Amino acid sequence: ENLNRVKSSLDEAGFKNRHTLYYAMKANRFAPLLTYLKLSGLCGIDACSPNEVEHAVSCGFEPSEISFTATSLSQDDFDMLARYKGLFMDCDSITAIHNWGKRQSGGEIGIRINPSLGLGRSDNDMLQYSGERTTKFGIYIEQFEDALKVAKSYGLKVTKIHFHSGCGYLDSELAQLKSIIERSKVFLALAKDVKRINIGGGLGVPLLPTDKHLNLKKWASLVYELFGDLDIHLEVEPGAYIANDAGLLLLTKTFLEKKQDTLFLGVNAGFNIAPEPAYYALPFQPIPFHYNSERLHPVTVVGNINEALDVWYKDAYLPDMTHHDGLVLINAGAYSSSMASNHCMRGQYKEFLLM
Amino acid sequence: ENLNRVKSSLDEAGFKNRHTLYYAMKANRFAPLLTYLKLSGLCGIDACSPNEVEHAVSCGFEPSEISFTATSLSQDDFDMLARYKGLFMDCDSITAIHNWGKRQSGGEIGIRINPSLGLGRSDNDMLQYSGERTTKFGIYIEQFEDALKVAKSYGLKVTKIHFHSGCGYLDSELAQLKSIIERSKVFLALAKDVKRINIGGGLGVPLLPTDKHLNLKKWASLVYELFGDLDIHLEVEPGAYIANDAGLLLLTKTFLEKKQDTLFLGVNAGFNIAPEPAYYALPFQPIPFHYNSERLHPVTVVGNINEALDVWYKDAYLPDMTHHDGLVLINAGAYSSSMASNHCMRGQYKEFLLM
Repeated sequence: ENLNRVKSSLDEAGFKNRHTLYYAMKANRFAPLLTYLKLSGLCGIDACSPNEVEHAVSCGFEPSEISFTATSLSQDDFDMLARYKGLFMDCDSITAIHNWGKRQSGGEIGIRINPSLGLGRSDNDMLQYSGERTTKFGIYIEQFEDALKVAKSYGLKVTKIHFHSGCGYLDSELAQLKSIIERSKVFLALAKDVKRINIGGGLGVPLLPTDKHLNLKKWASLVYELFGDLDIHLEVEPGAYIANDAGLLLLTKTFLEKKQDTLFLGVNAGFNIAPEPAYYALPFQPIPFHYNSERLHPVTVVGNINEALDVWYKDAYLPDMTHHDGLVLINAGAYSSSMASNHCMRGQYKEFLLM
Repeated sequence: ENLNRVKSSLDEAGFKNRHTLYYAMKANRFAPLLTYLKLSGLCGIDACSPNEVEHAVSCGFEPSEISFTATSLSQDDFDMLARYKGLFMDCDSITAIHNWGKRQSGGEIGIRINPSLGLGRSDNDMLQYSGERTTKFGIYIEQFEDALKVAKSYGLKVTKIHFHSGCGYLDSELAQLKSIIERSKVFLALAKDVKRINIGGGLGVPLLPTDKHLNLKKWASLVYELFGDLDIHLEVEPGAYIANDAGLLLLTKTFLEKKQDTLFLGVNAGFNIAPEPAYYALPFQPIPFHYNSERLHPVTVVGNINEALDVWYKDAYLPDMTHHDGLVLINAGAYSSSMASNHCMRGQYKEFLLM
């Protein structure tokens, strides 16, 4: 449904048959999910490592359905990637153009550019990929003409421009997205063979009760307003937008106990199996298995890892949990299992595709 | 050597034959390391999950050499733990005393207390385990007498007090440690059967060039000054102190390139295989394979993960890296592989025990 919604909004804005969605598998690479997405026919795959490419292929995708954008690739990585005929490579540095050109001269590539403008939840600067501080991502305007020359020297045609500027953007950040797209046109003007623009992912879902859904119609119209007149094919790489609110994390209660002045609800897993709240302070809202309108109290929900940051939610307002078996954390579908570790040897979980 | 240094300092301070070290295996559970530590005869194991206990036993430790302190244990966890005869359980909540008492009535337990005082690098409040804000860890003084009553109701003798108040403490935090130990005596006065005190881990190693080594002599004397006169056996659970500076992370260069105004050195692995710098802003200092006194320039060392926080070190001062193959990150022995994930399917690494 999330994919369909993005597709429809782009179709309606004017991009019908002129856009492709690539699901960013780094958000959630659960094999049954990938096969399900393949069978839906709605998307290709955005991959960022040779093992991700192999995994996507093992789940049914063709290399030609995979858009590859990564950073800091090794010689071994390039060797492995060059074996997948049809894989589309977006080069993230001048070094990458050299390395790919040596292996695939005469083909087409994309260039990941860095528009020097950030995008993302305005309250969280950990999610900025291309803001004021120079980042490792993409090629900046200062080095872009050199990059084009290097591509040319290998007979590589630069047919795609790619940028990804941040995560979790909602309506209030659409003005930033507009500035970034406008900035990308400076690069476009220099790269005459470009036929495809990839605007990355970063579409946000509501995480806090006060957040509103991203207005996709507004988003798609904005993109069309800026690119619609050009003879280009649009690519979008949503990851979290597809997987985040499609995933629930079910946890069983281990204890309910007052410590000093605070009521703690312990559960049978910790931040290591879903690290996003700990890494990025993006909370998963807890909902009891059987929710009702009982009187609500502040409860701090904690996991089973012996570490101070292993707190699922501070001061969640929950009903009396004495007779509840546990709870669900919502918005846990992205960057959970994909980033899970076996820290404290507490890495056990099971994933289920519900159809 | 790190273990020996701790042992000697305690011996010399007056704890000879009156102390036991338990290596906190959550810091680094590499099987050859555990077996090596077992054969050294210098320590038991501090474990925090049933799988850690099983792993320690598989590496050669007896259950009776394992001190177990965990949080938010499930009924399944208690069932598994009760099968290890001789395992010593420190209960972290009143609920845990009930659960253990139902399975092992009439035995001995420890109680993890929370002294409501934090400890840790003063510049990093993410490392505070028992500071001003109430945490999930241990039993507070407000609930301690209830805890003793519950233990008694199962015929459990409380023979150990355990506390762990923070990580990475150096000389400047020893005054805090003193206050915490003094606070623990309020608990001691109420628990008449206590014969053992476990002061946790948290001993720090220098992480920044400006940090000095913890003065172990001063540390051991302080602990002896406060506990030496009592008829107790001391337990210490160092983890990071043992493993941190014993581990090097070797990384190969993937690119060296100026982006906008910044020189980036890319390497062939990212924060997912050693997440501490990203989680806790505790940097691993980079050192080129062949270090010499060439002129140093600021370089930002970055990994191969498509994520903004995948930066190993900002503005490291390094020699010209054009002809270097890569670098070593020092202080990477603890909380690296043990917390590693397969994010972006970039989880590949190999560990080697060097003897």
